[in-house]
Amino acid sequence: MDGYLNPESADFESRPRYYIGQHDSHRPDAVTDEQYHRFLNSGFQFVTTPITNQHFYDRVVELYKTHLKEREAWGLSDAHKTNQSLPGPVVPTLTNKDTSYGPSNYVGSLVAYASPWIDLSSEDTLISSISRQVLNLELAYAAFCGARSVIIPGPRQDENGRAVMQYARAIQEALDVASRINIIIQMPMFREPGLEEVDLTLSEVFGPTKDKTASGPQEIDLFSAWDSWNSVRSVCKYNNRLFVAIRIPLRAPEKDLQERWFSEPLHYLTLSSKVFQLNKAGHPTLSRNQQDLINRYMRLKNSPWLLLSDVGSDDTDITTRKAEENIVDFPTLSEAANVPKRSQFPPLHPYVAYLKHLEKKQPPFTAMEAPALVSFQDWLQSPLQPLADNLESATYEVFEGDPVKYNQYELAIAEAMKEWKTLAKPVSSANNTNLVVAVAGAGRGPLVTRVLRAAASTGTAIQLWALEKNQNAYVYLLRQNELQWNGQVTVAKTDMRGWPGPDPSRNAKVDILVTELLGSFGDNELSPECLDGIQRHVARPYGISIPESYTAHLSPIATPRIHADLSGKVLLDKNAFETPWVTRLFQIDFVAAEKVPGHPRFQQAWEFVHPVEVSEADRFLAEHGASARYATQGTGSMAGSSGTNEHNARHCHLTFVCRTRGVVHGLAGYFESVLYRPREAGREKVEISILPDQIDRKSRDMISWFPIFFPIKQPLYFPQDAELEVSMWRQTDDTKVWYEWIIEAYAWAGPKTRIKVGASDMHSSREVGCRM
Amino acid sequence: MDGYLNPESADFESRPRYYIGQHDSHRPDAVTDEQYHRFLNSGFQFVTTPITNQHFYDRVVELYKTHLKEREAWGLSDAHKTNQSLPGPVVPTLTNKDTSYGPSNYVGSLVAYASPWIDLSSEDTLISSISRQVLNLELAYAAFCGARSVIIPGPRQDENGRAVMQYARAIQEALDVASRINIIIQMPMFREPGLEEVDLTLSEVFGPTKDKTASGPQEIDLFSAWDSWNSVRSVCKYNNRLFVAIRIPLRAPEKDLQERWFSEPLHYLTLSSKVFQLNKAGHPTLSRNQQDLINRYMRLKNSPWLLLSDVGSDDTDITTRKAEENIVDFPTLSEAANVPKRSQFPPLHPYVAYLKHLEKKQPPFTAMEAPALVSFQDWLQSPLQPLADNLESATYEVFEGDPVKYNQYELAIAEAMKEWKTLAKPVSSANNTNLVVAVAGAGRGPLVTRVLRAAASTGTAIQLWALEKNQNAYVYLLRQNELQWNGQVTVAKTDMRGWPGPDPSRNAKVDILVTELLGSFGDNELSPECLDGIQRHVARPYGISIPESYTAHLSPIATPRIHADLSGKVLLDKNAFETPWVTRLFQIDFVAAEKVPGHPRFQQAWEFVHPVEVSEADRFLAEHGASARYATQGTGSMAGSSGTNEHNARHCHLTFVCRTRGVVHGLAGYFESVLYRPREAGREKVEISILPDQIDRKSRDMISWFPIFFPIKQPLYFPQDAELEVSMWRQTDDTKVWYEWIIEAYAWAGPKTRIKVGASDMHSSREVGCRM
Repeated sequence: MDGYLNPESADFESRPRYYIGQHDSHRPDAVTDEQYHRFLNSGFQFVTTPITNQHFYDRVVELYKTHLKEREAWGLSDAHKTNQSLPGPVVPTLTNKDTSYGPSNYVGSLVAYASPWIDLSSEDTLISSISRQVLNLELAYAAFCGARSVIIPGPRQDENGRAVMQYARAIQEALDVASRINIIIQMPMFREPGLEEVDLTLSEVFGPTKDKTASGPQEIDLFSAWDSWNSVRSVCKYNNRLFVAIRIPLRAPEKDLQERWFSEPLHYLTLSSKVFQLNKAGHPTLSRNQQDLINRYMRLKNSPWLLLSDVGSDDTDITTRKAEENIVDFPTLSEAANVPKRSQFPPLHPYVAYLKHLEKKQPPFTAMEAPALVSFQDWLQSPLQPLADNLESATYEVFEGDPVKYNQYELAIAEAMKEWKTLAKPVSSANNTNLVVAVAGAGRGPLVTRVLRAAASTGTAIQLWALEKNQNAYVYLLRQNELQWNGQVTVAKTDMRGWPGPDPSRNAKVDILVTELLGSFGDNELSPECLDGIQRHVARPYGISIPESYTAHLSPIATPRIHADLSGKVLLDKNAFETPWVTRLFQIDFVAAEKVPGHPRFQQAWEFVHPVEVSEADRFLAEHGASARYATQGTGSMAGSSGTNEHNARHCHLTFVCRTRGVVHGLAGYFESVLYRPREAGREKVEISILPDQIDRKSRDMISWFPIFFPIKQPLYFPQDAELEVSMWRQTDDTKVWYEWIIEAYAWAGPKTRIKVGASDMHSSREVGCRM
Repeated sequence: MDGYLNPESADFESRPRYYIGQHDSHRPDAVTDEQYHRFLNSGFQFVTTPITNQHFYDRVVELYKTHLKEREAWGLSDAHKTNQSLPGPVVPTLTNKDTSYGPSNYVGSLVAYASPWIDLSSEDTLISSISRQVLNLELAYAAFCGARSVIIPGPRQDENGRAVMQYARAIQEALDVASRINIIIQMPMFREPGLEEVDLTLSEVFGPTKDKTASGPQEIDLFSAWDSWNSVRSVCKYNNRLFVAIRIPLRAPEKDLQERWFSEPLHYLTLSSKVFQLNKAGHPTLSRNQQDLINRYMRLKNSPWLLLSDVGSDDTDITTRKAEENIVDFPTLSEAANVPKRSQFPPLHPYVAYLKHLEKKQPPFTAMEAPALVSFQDWLQSPLQPLADNLESATYEVFEGDPVKYNQYELAIAEAMKEWKTLAKPVSSANNTNLVVAVAGAGRGPLVTRVLRAAASTGTAIQLWALEKNQNAYVYLLRQNELQWNGQVTVAKTDMRGWPGPDPSRNAKVDILVTELLGSFGDNELSPECLDGIQRHVARPYGISIPESYTAHLSPIATPRIHADLSGKVLLDKNAFETPWVTRLFQIDFVAAEKVPGHPRFQQAWEFVHPVEVSEADRFLAEHGASARYATQGTGSMAGSSGTNEHNARHCHLTFVCRTRGVVHGLAGYFESVLYRPREAGREKVEISILPDQIDRKSRDMISWFPIFFPIKQPLYFPQDAELEVSMWRQTDDTKVWYEWIIEAYAWAGPKTRIKVGASDMHSSREVGCRM
């Protein structure tokens, strides 16, 4: 049928697939075989089904009524009118009259739907007890029959927050009652007047009538539905069998809310017929904003399924709506063309047809959405230990496969060579006019190649060193020098920190030192410590380090998915929440507002600049080796340290502003680097960046680095108009380097009063720190 | 000297002891032998000493200045003015010129005092780095010398909350650097203008001068000092070597703040000479409020030590102050009497003399403060498993030792007998005019004795049963019946739930059922389930259960001490934070405001009433045994249950109001019980209660029950004007009973906007639940 189903087609898998289902909120009993197949034939891929039927409902209502009468008959004394000791009714188990749902060969393709008339959080303890019993009976039976997932109507609007915990507790138990199936909570994106709570619950059938319109038009609280969901899944400890189905609203809400739901475990997007508009030809359509919303969510690695709700089993709904809206029916040519096939292949359901149209209209996958890259989304990698471990050739090959990065390096090297010739060469000693370049940590030599190319393009005579501590890569470098570099390179097998320099007898210096030691957070793979160990060989004052400097950047994020992942990992690895993870962050929500003067979404934590200025005393010590320093050592800031690496410790305190309420699971970390900063005014810096708001401008399509993620163990909730105060440290005890981080939440209570509302634990990667 | 030092004296240990020390904030070097002994002779019991001296200070200042000059000399470019890469100075280790402090035979009696001029949270990274190094050098050296504790000046006022985390992190490390000594943070009770920050730190010496008075008179934020302390100890994870020393203020602050500090690990109360007033005779005195404050703190199990600060080594300070205040010196008779001893025993330091006077003026220990009871303060006991385990005789003996409880029971039984005779006897069958009483769970028989006494006092003819499941206690009961009760009692060895009743063949009933199955939280030892199992034998409608009803009550509390204790316990017992602990709560702070209409400090969670009304269907089932019920069982609310105990499940949602900001560590639980509720109007209920605000009125001096404590794992911080929403459940799956609890914090941001600010985890004692 469609191109994307044909592997030969150019369309194949070039955009996300839609998986479309049908839900009828008034279906009186389980879906029959005949119904099921009719839905499949009209283009649906799955169907929902109630678990129990009207007979069961009537029986439960009767049970409740009888109990009320009995209660009345006891004529309780005033003192005990509210006596909870009175035993409430126990809902008897299901019989075959209560349900026609059962095992079948397609039961796994049916999505079971829990009875919408239960009220798990009713203030009437009888009703909430009956509701829990009904839910547990239904879930246990659905699990027995082979259901894979059950949708449960979400908690009702809960103005004073009293009820949601009862609801949450019932769901927590439901996950135990049905210990293998997925539970999906049906939520609105926000509680939109007119689209809310169509089903009457037991509480509403029996309780005092609440005049919902009496309070008049209220301000819509956009985040209240998300808030309820957050309470439920928090009580359920981010259980990985708990998902959310969100109702697409009539009007797509503000971006902040859309992105919030983007980060949540979306299993379904439900669309009722009400959210579609009929166009002049009588076809159902969605607005541009609604389409964008769906397109956005479809880009998730596990894209949500679409559930059409109350759209009927055929086009009756459309016919009725057309009649109401006085739309005269003119079939289009393509529809007319369908007519002959009608008897054999029933036409697509009109809403399905429209969604299939939208499916094809989606923008195709970009290069960054290639399946190989998508598989890395939100997947946690432990950071490298580049100093302690030797890398394998394949790892080098991955790093080398990023042309953007090496192009920027070559540009930086060429710029440095040009400027060096104007500034430094005239004052350097006449005996040595060749520019001395050293590539330290050369690996398999990609930067060596770039240095040679830069020298050629700028016509610079150079003397080139390649240093490498990995004895295996050293072999490769020697071979490269023979085969590719015409023996122009002096290859040395050495840790750069122990290198005696280009010509120790003459105390010769390096003019340009080139390294690629940067990690996702800039300094997290110990670039500062490595460069400290070699910088005594850099000529002063005109010696150049490429990179010249790098900065680390942070932004607080919500990432329920990674939090759930870590909650599992921590059972095997007690440091899971104390580890900075390298990960391609994707299904996340940046909780900080984007454009607040002085408090941008991405903020710089700190900077490292090379070569480092050192005091005369330190220079003396450096010349005479590190051991000389121990003669005058102190204690440093950390237990067990002697202060020798104290100058590479860092601390920052950043304030992020959050407009809407939310929850933070940790900090996303990024870096930027100035590879070369011209000394001459007016010339441009050569930079690379992985900051989301800078990468396209500074190093578009650079894929060498994913971001880093600093988790917090306990998700930190914050109210609207909050400020997150982030304290972060780069710590060192002279033998290793690690990070520490803590987030505090403040809120504005009135224009002048800032109140603290909570804080995370102090986190530390000391136990998994990077060894020097 | 004083009576309390003499074990023969009546005063001996009848009131808390004062332990008085001396601190001089301007002492230029370590205390010498001669000074130390002079202090002891003038009445002090310990002395503080600086660790380093002026020489060290000068050296550090010089180091800092030299570094600044060097920095200037580098003439950094604008781009890198803030370059943190510049290595800061490493403070060299101490030499013998830097300190005269050292090991001595009294070093353990000296309290080391860290240099007050460091600023651990300076925004100048050089100063904060130097400060951390200085602190670590001093601590490491003090630990080497044998110091047991070091006092560190607390964090400075921190208006925007940016600095305290740096301070906290340094203290966390300090606990590692000095891994065996106690660290005491010196804090004011609140930041009182005029008494603050007397010492200049490095930052103030070198930083831009802040005009402290420019901002004019500010509103005092009473809780900001406590808030800083809370941040520090939270980062240090409630380390049990971390204490606080609080400065007694000029004016005792409001009760809320006093009680907050009462709950903290107070090690010292420091009193500077400024907080004393001179009376007309020139003697230093404290106000009534200050005295009350000290008296209150001295009642702690580990009462704090008193540290007199800057009061001089003799009476010079008094002389100066007298001169300033024009007070003419008239020695009192007792002072005149001291004169002859002057040469041999130096007179007490005037401030010490006054404190010793206050010490003697303290109210003596009450009965409830007897050493045996004090040792139970905040000590955690696991709740009993009375159904699953058999108690030992000694345990019964403890329970029996509370006359208050049994007196109330006897009163209730007598009242019930009297009323039964007017109401029930006239309508009961003529054949059986004896009142049938059953004591179920009779133990060693204290209630049997009380029933017999009540029958005698009311002239009631009774037929008395004693039921006991513990075969060992059964032997004791038989013996008692022979020796004490003249064989008036029918003793049966049976679980009350399996008892066939007083005369199964005639289907005879019990008129008064007496039990003592209550736990600290009322229903936590399964009284409801036990009574369910026997109530079918209670006559209707006039049968009586004593107790007639009981209620459970809650209040959120701060209890850092128990939290710290549990943080240790949890390493060995993963359920430590999921266990309701029975404990004599003492060093706690009730965080809820006392008198808020509708939201009192202590709120009722739920109630149980006996006998329970049951439906006809249930009555039939009960008569025919529990097994009949399984024929129609459901699922109940809990996984694995069939709903048979569903009526003993409970849920409550309570709202507590907190005026001041604070932290909550869990819920204190209590119970009240109506032993007998007269059916006739106008007669008084017979009650017992362990509620702090009710016990004195309802059952004064009753010691049978300590409160229960429901902990939360993560302390929950809340801002001022907060509301704590407590959800609690009594859950059951027909095989056991357990509790679940969660606390959510809301705050008022403006008069109409209530915002959620955080929540605890959902806690559950399911794994340690009470087996039925």
